[in-house]
Amino acid sequence: MAPVEAAIGAAIDELKRLLGARATDAAAVLEQHSHDESYHPPAAPDVVCFPHTTEEVSAIVRVSASRHVPVIPFGAGTSLEGHVNAIHGGITIDLREMNRVLRVGAEDMDATVEAGVTRLQLNKALRSTGLTFTVDPGADSSLGGMAATRASGTTAVRYGTMRENVLGLTVVLPDGRIIKTGTRARKSSSGYDLTRLFVGSEGTLGVITEVTVRLHPLPEAVSAAVCSFDSMKGAIDTVIATIQHGVPVARMELLDETQMDAVNRYSKTSYAVAPTLFFEFHSDSRAHIADQAQTVQALAAERSGRDFQWATRLEDREKLWRARHDTLYASLALRPGSRAQITDVCVPISHLAECILETKQDNLGAPFPISLVGHAGDGNFHLLYLLNVESPAELEAARQLNERLVMRALRMGGTCSGEHGVGTGKMKYLEAEHGSALELMRTLKRALDPDNRMNPGKMLVVD
Amino acid sequence: MAPVEAAIGAAIDELKRLLGARATDAAAVLEQHSHDESYHPPAAPDVVCFPHTTEEVSAIVRVSASRHVPVIPFGAGTSLEGHVNAIHGGITIDLREMNRVLRVGAEDMDATVEAGVTRLQLNKALRSTGLTFTVDPGADSSLGGMAATRASGTTAVRYGTMRENVLGLTVVLPDGRIIKTGTRARKSSSGYDLTRLFVGSEGTLGVITEVTVRLHPLPEAVSAAVCSFDSMKGAIDTVIATIQHGVPVARMELLDETQMDAVNRYSKTSYAVAPTLFFEFHSDSRAHIADQAQTVQALAAERSGRDFQWATRLEDREKLWRARHDTLYASLALRPGSRAQITDVCVPISHLAECILETKQDNLGAPFPISLVGHAGDGNFHLLYLLNVESPAELEAARQLNERLVMRALRMGGTCSGEHGVGTGKMKYLEAEHGSALELMRTLKRALDPDNRMNPGKMLVVD
Repeated sequence: MAPVEAAIGAAIDELKRLLGARATDAAAVLEQHSHDESYHPPAAPDVVCFPHTTEEVSAIVRVSASRHVPVIPFGAGTSLEGHVNAIHGGITIDLREMNRVLRVGAEDMDATVEAGVTRLQLNKALRSTGLTFTVDPGADSSLGGMAATRASGTTAVRYGTMRENVLGLTVVLPDGRIIKTGTRARKSSSGYDLTRLFVGSEGTLGVITEVTVRLHPLPEAVSAAVCSFDSMKGAIDTVIATIQHGVPVARMELLDETQMDAVNRYSKTSYAVAPTLFFEFHSDSRAHIADQAQTVQALAAERSGRDFQWATRLEDREKLWRARHDTLYASLALRPGSRAQITDVCVPISHLAECILETKQDNLGAPFPISLVGHAGDGNFHLLYLLNVESPAELEAARQLNERLVMRALRMGGTCSGEHGVGTGKMKYLEAEHGSALELMRTLKRALDPDNRMNPGKMLVVD
Repeated sequence: MAPVEAAIGAAIDELKRLLGARATDAAAVLEQHSHDESYHPPAAPDVVCFPHTTEEVSAIVRVSASRHVPVIPFGAGTSLEGHVNAIHGGITIDLREMNRVLRVGAEDMDATVEAGVTRLQLNKALRSTGLTFTVDPGADSSLGGMAATRASGTTAVRYGTMRENVLGLTVVLPDGRIIKTGTRARKSSSGYDLTRLFVGSEGTLGVITEVTVRLHPLPEAVSAAVCSFDSMKGAIDTVIATIQHGVPVARMELLDETQMDAVNRYSKTSYAVAPTLFFEFHSDSRAHIADQAQTVQALAAERSGRDFQWATRLEDREKLWRARHDTLYASLALRPGSRAQITDVCVPISHLAECILETKQDNLGAPFPISLVGHAGDGNFHLLYLLNVESPAELEAARQLNERLVMRALRMGGTCSGEHGVGTGKMKYLEAEHGSALELMRTLKRALDPDNRMNPGKMLVVD
């Protein structure tokens, strides 16, 4: 038996003694934990643990430390860049049984949850409070996972990303020590910002076991609108003008003509097959909602917007936004049997039109359909490459298109990842994006995790 | 000559060769750089440099590295916890001649400035753009200094602190390397959040030379209001209710009866000598402004609020807010010849009333007047201890009162510093606030600055 295997065998024995049936190397469980929702190749861990407390996570990480075995934190498994794939084997810590809402602070508008609580679960628990957790990445992700990938989604333009909405964390460090970061105060100038260091660290510096998040009041008034445009540029100029006018729009989503065509076919709607913006307006005041919609309608009309449709009743709003929510399934239906590879660049919005138009030009002649949906107010957009994943030629074409897209975004002052994180999928772009700052990231990784045991092979190559 | 003195002498010679007259050990200049605006004992550096470029800062830091001499970054000198006092001597880098606004991105609503640009200077440069930089700590601080101390102020309740408003930085690392953190994209999930690591690091990890900040549209409509309350609890309950109702109040400042008495005497006004809230409302819509004020007036009336005065005209608003702006001078006038020691705890707002009331009880019998002004929406309040700084007994009484205040805030889940930073003044409270997380901060400091040359003796004790 090789030394590595012996170490893993000993670790598995120790974990089984510690957790009983909550540590398992059953093949089916290992397989379930070998992948996220992306196209990245699966890789199974050697053992999966289901801790119930931070102290148990600490004990598991101490086994990892003494046996020199990797640790991979696992939330809801909804990530998109291979974050949870156990590419070097090791111990996967599945946090889904740590799913208690520990505390809701109605007056402070915050909540502390265990890392395995999902966003829909939290919002269900908040039902009677008049408060809501706003970060909405689409999937029903765990809050630990969302913190670890610095997730955001459709509402970031108004309410911010996990960066702005995490107030504090409980983290198990690579040597098993437990720390709490941040306080329950809304702001602080006391010491280094450890919370923000772990938000977006993708499990490479420690395991997040509890998250304190900011909540927001449910808006008194909500309305929605949809508007199609003669040109992509007109749509994006409307986005810029809306933000510059200080309209506190809650959601502002961009769909391209391919995506709208897919939506029409899938949802039996009859929207114009044209660049389209979906808006949602929130306010503490009903009059203000009407004001917002009128302002945006006028701004759109001056920028080639047509057929501005406004909806205030819940069912009308839901019908209108269904098109946006169905984008993934509608796109997949464009090519039955396909899987979607999803890109994620984010650029300064002054470059968004240029970036999208150049990209669409570059996409002409791609051997698969490509649809676009974007969080336009943030400058973040996703292309859905609808691939036959059995075709090496398509995978290679997708790789090349995405690489050119990333380099284009970086040239424009943007980032390779607006909200999906780095994982294994985008490691190759970090040098181009961060330059000499990447070496400082490596210094941090080495200082906190000198053995490179925490989610190794993700985000950073450490020598 | 002792080895340390020889090293410093050699460093001074080298810096003078590098910068000519912009490196000086003239006594008057050293004295000017020995202190900030606080009561902390002054300590002069050995030499002061006035670089004009990031590359010059890098060259200065390389001299510090080769000669093992401390570096102290100096902005506008407006800090309050001894951040710039050269307690171990060394090289002060005065960044005030790096004061160019490098770029204003009107469409992206961001700007990149050299670290020595002050907030008023930036807002002057923005005059024709319809945009504004919102972080307002009162003093005309430099943006580098504000980033380094994670500053905030009266508008944080709506627009956030420097944590939320810094998008990226240029930093000279302790070995002289230059890095850029962040991108110009509004959000990113790519890599560790180096920007937030340096925001609030108080010069202990590197020297910030450029700052990219977020701008906000000037509001279409602004109004102000003032309201006095029968009780402190009524005032704070109004603050909580206002936030919970989702009223996007732009400023919400609390003054206690001592402070209001001081204001009346100083500004010849006739406000009720009672706990008082000052509000400012911003909106993209005039109707919404009226809605906000009406909502808050109703909430206040139910919570012992009286004499709600509302002002929309610029001169009326300015007159009304003058009282808030004059708090420091009004307080000092309560005791001619005194200096103010300013506390800075921040607690969850659910504990704000309790914290203030217990503190006021504890303050009874203090040998000096104490006034209170608070950023109530954030849970952050300042006591002004109006001291005879020649009296050791008063200084000791102030120390004890502040220590009990800090411990009270920490018990309530708060922080010792809402916005002024740690400096030398609050180092003693970091263990109590951060527990085992403090050791992780030390690990970061050692990893980035192994010689402990960057603003040594501030924030953290490193062995």
